[in-house]
Amino acid sequence: MAGKAEAKPGRILVFRLPYEGDLLASIKEAVEQAGVETGVFWIIGAVKKAHISFYNQAGKEYLRREFDRPMEILACTGNVAKLKGETLIHAHLVLGDEEGKALGGHLEKGTIIFSAEMFLVELEGLTLTREYDEVTGLNLFKL
Amino acid sequence: MAGKAEAKPGRILVFRLPYEGDLLASIKEAVEQAGVETGVFWIIGAVKKAHISFYNQAGKEYLRREFDRPMEILACTGNVAKLKGETLIHAHLVLGDEEGKALGGHLEKGTIIFSAEMFLVELEGLTLTREYDEVTGLNLFKL
Amino acid sequence: MAGKAEAKPGRILVFRLPYEGDLLASIKEAVEQAGVETGVFWIIGAVKKAHISFYNQAGKEYLRREFDRPMEILACTGNVAKLKGETLIHAHLVLGDEEGKALGGHLEKGTIIFSAEMFLVELEGLTLTREYDEVTGLNLFKL
Repeated sequence: MAGKAEAKPGRILVFRLPYEGDLLASIKEAVEQAGVETGVFWIIGAVKKAHISFYNQAGKEYLRREFDRPMEILACTGNVAKLKGETLIHAHLVLGDEEGKALGGHLEKGTIIFSAEMFLVELEGLTLTREYDEVTGLNLFKL
Repeated sequence: MAGKAEAKPGRILVFRLPYEGDLLASIKEAVEQAGVETGVFWIIGAVKKAHISFYNQAGKEYLRREFDRPMEILACTGNVAKLKGETLIHAHLVLGDEEGKALGGHLEKGTIIFSAEMFLVELEGLTLTREYDEVTGLNLFKL
Repeated sequence: MAGKAEAKPGRILVFRLPYEGDLLASIKEAVEQAGVETGVFWIIGAVKKAHISFYNQAGKEYLRREFDRPMEILACTGNVAKLKGETLIHAHLVLGDEEGKALGGHLEKGTIIFSAEMFLVELEGLTLTREYDEVTGLNLFKL
């Protein structure tokens, strides 16, 4: 059975994230400054380099991958929730290189913005929280 | 000319889809239990394996591809509409493997969830239906 | 620091973009006919061929790539804003080929629709504009 929560659409926020900022840190700073507790967002743009990860489901650990070259942000979908009272940004990234080849993973610190247009829909009437899940080893939504 | 319909934003629903559930069946079950008739959704997470397809435009048939290994759900965009009175889930998937390489296609049954965070925006005041289109061989929006 | 603007959710529009239409031109025509000034959208579907580009960050120019074969639109995220009073559509595309391999880039004219389901959220109370940015060589959001 799926866990479920309901909310109402709140504000829609548009951000131009800062040139040469760290993508993950910039998202967090932007949503905190806007006072967003729970939301879902999308980004397109480009990065100077990308640090992403792949979750090893058997070993329950993130394997980091670094791509130290400019790429397009073809798609980035993420959400804003709380883990132990702190804002947690969870986002997945699809990148495109010069030849048009796509790659991607879980967004990690170390991804540097060239340009980033972010749209966020705030969820009103819901505080979404995460908690540790033994089965997957991940901090999943508590629903 | 584009076909067009208008709606108002309704509820926003957040789901934690079930571990080891079939992704396509779990989406359908979740939206039906929530009473959603028309909507648009996004998912990030990971799968244990993926069954996707590619539509052969000339032959008008789906070619299935199976990837029997863990991958990240880098992006998944889909919608909820009706075909002959029944809920039809249409979703496309972008997956990422251990090396960060991206792949994807049309979501088919047989894709098994490791973790899946789904956000759905309900469309109020609109019942979106599909009907068979001779030219493409697909069940397209009737607008 | 991130630039920021706030809006309220307006209409949600659903479009079936025209068979064999140019994807970029069809998006623009659809949003203009619907009277949308500012919005964010998502598309899934398929193309007969794709013309995309990669922005060379050092050289400040778009490098075009043409893929003259049918592919799935695995994800397409874009936005509607104004540049010098004219509607500007900015969209990034993730495509999938017959083998399930993903590719993509910045959407350019010359991408031909096979089928395209588009959902657009209108931003109410905000006119989003773009202006030239010296540092990146791009027309970024003025926020």
